[in-house]
Amino acid sequence: MRIWRSRMTAVENFGDRLDNAIQRSGSVVCVGLDPRVDSLPPSIRPQNARDWLAIAAAYETFCGGIIDAVAGHVGVVKPQAAFFEEIGAAGMVAMQNVIAHAKRAGMLVILDGKRNDIGSTAQAYARAYLGEDSPWNCDALTVSPYLGQDSLDPFIEQCDQTATGIFVLVKTSNPGGGFLQDQTTDGQTIYRRVAERIASENTSRQGKSGYGPIGAVVGATYPEQLKELRAAMPNSPLLIPGFGAQGGAAGDVAMGFDADGRGAVVNSSRHILFAYQREEYRERFGPDAWQRAAEAAAIDMNHQLNAARHRPANHAL
Amino acid sequence: MRIWRSRMTAVENFGDRLDNAIQRSGSVVCVGLDPRVDSLPPSIRPQNARDWLAIAAAYETFCGGIIDAVAGHVGVVKPQAAFFEEIGAAGMVAMQNVIAHAKRAGMLVILDGKRNDIGSTAQAYARAYLGEDSPWNCDALTVSPYLGQDSLDPFIEQCDQTATGIFVLVKTSNPGGGFLQDQTTDGQTIYRRVAERIASENTSRQGKSGYGPIGAVVGATYPEQLKELRAAMPNSPLLIPGFGAQGGAAGDVAMGFDADGRGAVVNSSRHILFAYQREEYRERFGPDAWQRAAEAAAIDMNHQLNAARHRPANHAL
Repeated sequence: MRIWRSRMTAVENFGDRLDNAIQRSGSVVCVGLDPRVDSLPPSIRPQNARDWLAIAAAYETFCGGIIDAVAGHVGVVKPQAAFFEEIGAAGMVAMQNVIAHAKRAGMLVILDGKRNDIGSTAQAYARAYLGEDSPWNCDALTVSPYLGQDSLDPFIEQCDQTATGIFVLVKTSNPGGGFLQDQTTDGQTIYRRVAERIASENTSRQGKSGYGPIGAVVGATYPEQLKELRAAMPNSPLLIPGFGAQGGAAGDVAMGFDADGRGAVVNSSRHILFAYQREEYRERFGPDAWQRAAEAAAIDMNHQLNAARHRPANHAL
Repeated sequence: MRIWRSRMTAVENFGDRLDNAIQRSGSVVCVGLDPRVDSLPPSIRPQNARDWLAIAAAYETFCGGIIDAVAGHVGVVKPQAAFFEEIGAAGMVAMQNVIAHAKRAGMLVILDGKRNDIGSTAQAYARAYLGEDSPWNCDALTVSPYLGQDSLDPFIEQCDQTATGIFVLVKTSNPGGGFLQDQTTDGQTIYRRVAERIASENTSRQGKSGYGPIGAVVGATYPEQLKELRAAMPNSPLLIPGFGAQGGAAGDVAMGFDADGRGAVVNSSRHILFAYQREEYRERFGPDAWQRAAEAAAIDMNHQLNAARHRPANHAL
């Protein structure tokens, strides 16, 4: 039973919860938890790259350590399911434990699974990750829109019941994302079509913050579209990937925020997780201080983004 | 190490392996493994619907029993990840064991996960389910195309390396699937755009059977589009959901097969899994004989589909 997000608190939805997390932490950073065995710090890296149990244990240690390092500076983490699934069921046990660790640290957890299906199967995914008795106990889930409106409905209903959220893929950060997303139909791009659908779902679901529970994934690598989509979905929280390792800069993501510098979180995975490998932090802390490096990288990213998101001329760029 | 599908056997690809499974079994049925606690036979249904470990154990027993019941009549099973994920990491352990059980029974396993992501994350999913040392050890995976070509490439490369396959969502069986799939762009529907992309990937990858490793999901509920897409993707194996419980009939799926009555498998989940609840089988076998009911339902579906797929006038309908 999760009383703290029960149906009783009708005024609070996921949009409000995300906004609270941003305001409480003073941060719009989302730390992506993408463990990769080859990038783990040598002190915790298993020798045998096919020993799933050892790798799963190392992922728990590593992600737990990262959570502890950034928890004072950042309010949101995003475990990437693929990297846990890569090592089999043992990885899924680790993912469950990592999510629980993040929740105990008071963080919001967005699971990046890009799930979806139809009918009762979509319901199963919704209950799995966002349900009242969810064994994973996430706060939000990324969801793909290719299957259409009736594939999103079970997730939206679940969001209403448990004050959880979804982030629907709208305009992704990869170079080939335009294959479907940028196609024009009836004078409108496919990504815009998805965006308007999401926007309309939030109009009747705005919380105190002005935001609803149905968010959108919009890549940092397409600043023009980010500006367009911020305006098209004024009540949707945005999850902005593509910052850092993928090339997006603080200036590029500035347009993702509202006039108060809120309404979006910017994900960084490798640049924070594996900051101990980056020259600037290796020189400062030495090669073994992966937690201190991650903490410093999160603080630095906070500074960069807080400068960008609060710029008065933000929306006149 | 999985020598039986190593790179050495360059002439065999997943298209050939699926064709072999169809010919060996004389069946184009794919049995969907969609366990749901509320539908389990009373004799194995856990009392406590929140006891994940007990439910996971019941799912293993049930899916294993179904596999044993249908293995002599059907060559392909399709576990639905959502129903295992619904019960948490314990469910994922069960899923791993169910897949292993199906492989031991000599069946091809298509995991229905509708996964996808970009870059190295897509690679992680591809390695997870289709890699040389995959802990899940599936033969194929369903994949969503919304993220574009560069999200599919890591899966296609993996298919080439391990003689595995993917089934890309093209035209799904749900009523709302047209939201994006039926939109027209440059005089072409989105589903057709995806289909042509898939078709072109297979032209250089045809095996002895004429089929390549890149399949497509096309719903039984849209027979006109099934006919169009069979023609548009002559070298792509089709996975046809929507038969039975969703309303598709044998006549509707006839157009999914090639002139030899091959090149596609038709999924049925509930109608076979929970056949013990259907009046016709309950009367024949009694209410507890869930394995005999599933076996009979699979045999009956074979008869229906074999009549439909081998009809000489099949492609002149």
